[in-house]
Amino acid sequence: MDLKEKVRVIDGFPKEGISFKDVTTLLQDKDAFKYTVDKIVEYLKDKKIDVVVGPEARGFLFGAPVAYALGAGFVPVRKKGKLPYDTISVNYDLEYGSDELEIHKDSIKKNQRIAIVDDLLATGGTIGSVAKLVEQLGGEVVTVDFVMELTDLNGREKLKKYDIMSLIKYNV
Amino acid sequence: MDLKEKVRVIDGFPKEGISFKDVTTLLQDKDAFKYTVDKIVEYLKDKKIDVVVGPEARGFLFGAPVAYALGAGFVPVRKKGKLPYDTISVNYDLEYGSDELEIHKDSIKKNQRIAIVDDLLATGGTIGSVAKLVEQLGGEVVTVDFVMELTDLNGREKLKKYDIMSLIKYNV
Repeated sequence: MDLKEKVRVIDGFPKEGISFKDVTTLLQDKDAFKYTVDKIVEYLKDKKIDVVVGPEARGFLFGAPVAYALGAGFVPVRKKGKLPYDTISVNYDLEYGSDELEIHKDSIKKNQRIAIVDDLLATGGTIGSVAKLVEQLGGEVVTVDFVMELTDLNGREKLKKYDIMSLIKYNV
Repeated sequence: MDLKEKVRVIDGFPKEGISFKDVTTLLQDKDAFKYTVDKIVEYLKDKKIDVVVGPEARGFLFGAPVAYALGAGFVPVRKKGKLPYDTISVNYDLEYGSDELEIHKDSIKKNQRIAIVDDLLATGGTIGSVAKLVEQLGGEVVTVDFVMELTDLNGREKLKKYDIMSLIKYNV
């Protein structure tokens, strides 16, 4: 299946000059959605993953079904103030200003094998922060996996210490 | 499996007087997570569901794996400004003020059979709004399904025109 055909490209969202990759058209297509999750699961199935970690909100859309199909647990990383129990947090830079991501302190046990799943690898900033949170809790980041990758933004360079997989590549 | 044991109850979050039901402990437990998704899928499997619809962000955590396991598509309902293509929207009241939910205009086709999935039935306000969006697009809301239900808040009354299922019930 050519998954790229299932993604809608929207020029000018969220602002001029950006060519947004809208993955909702893939999600709403039952065959494309199943194929996408199955491809990630196939990549992960011999990696002995204990827990899949995904950042809100689009990371939940793929991370949760991948965890389910793999028979793993799922741990959400959320924006500040959304998780109700004790958390650790990390700041990450945005184009203007910064934001803060949190994970529950007791969500990952030492030496658990973790796959981080998100919809899109762009600069790698978000996923680098998610990986830091996982490592602070003693988890091992076995692999970071994406539905889409914007290759020109060099996210791979930023995440080069990790194993990286993406299903669809865009050079803009 | 007693799913209630897998949910962490946190008194005083997000504010005094609220006894918050933290479903992340269920999610991170691979057996409890799989059991939960399978129970919802079992309920849905003979209902000829075309598309599962879930509101951000916790609705994604259960709605997406249910859609995957059922072989259905998944359509996200999001807060204003998050969806990149043409949308329709609905306002819903919060305790103070109101908020706006959106769905992509072309995400549901006329007469498609829809299951709405979310983590929690409280007052039913959010899911009532999600159902309105689905119906405006011509979808048929076959059932609304929840992991947890706060029975004292009478969400069932608000949603009484729909088929309702929940796995865990709390009377506070």
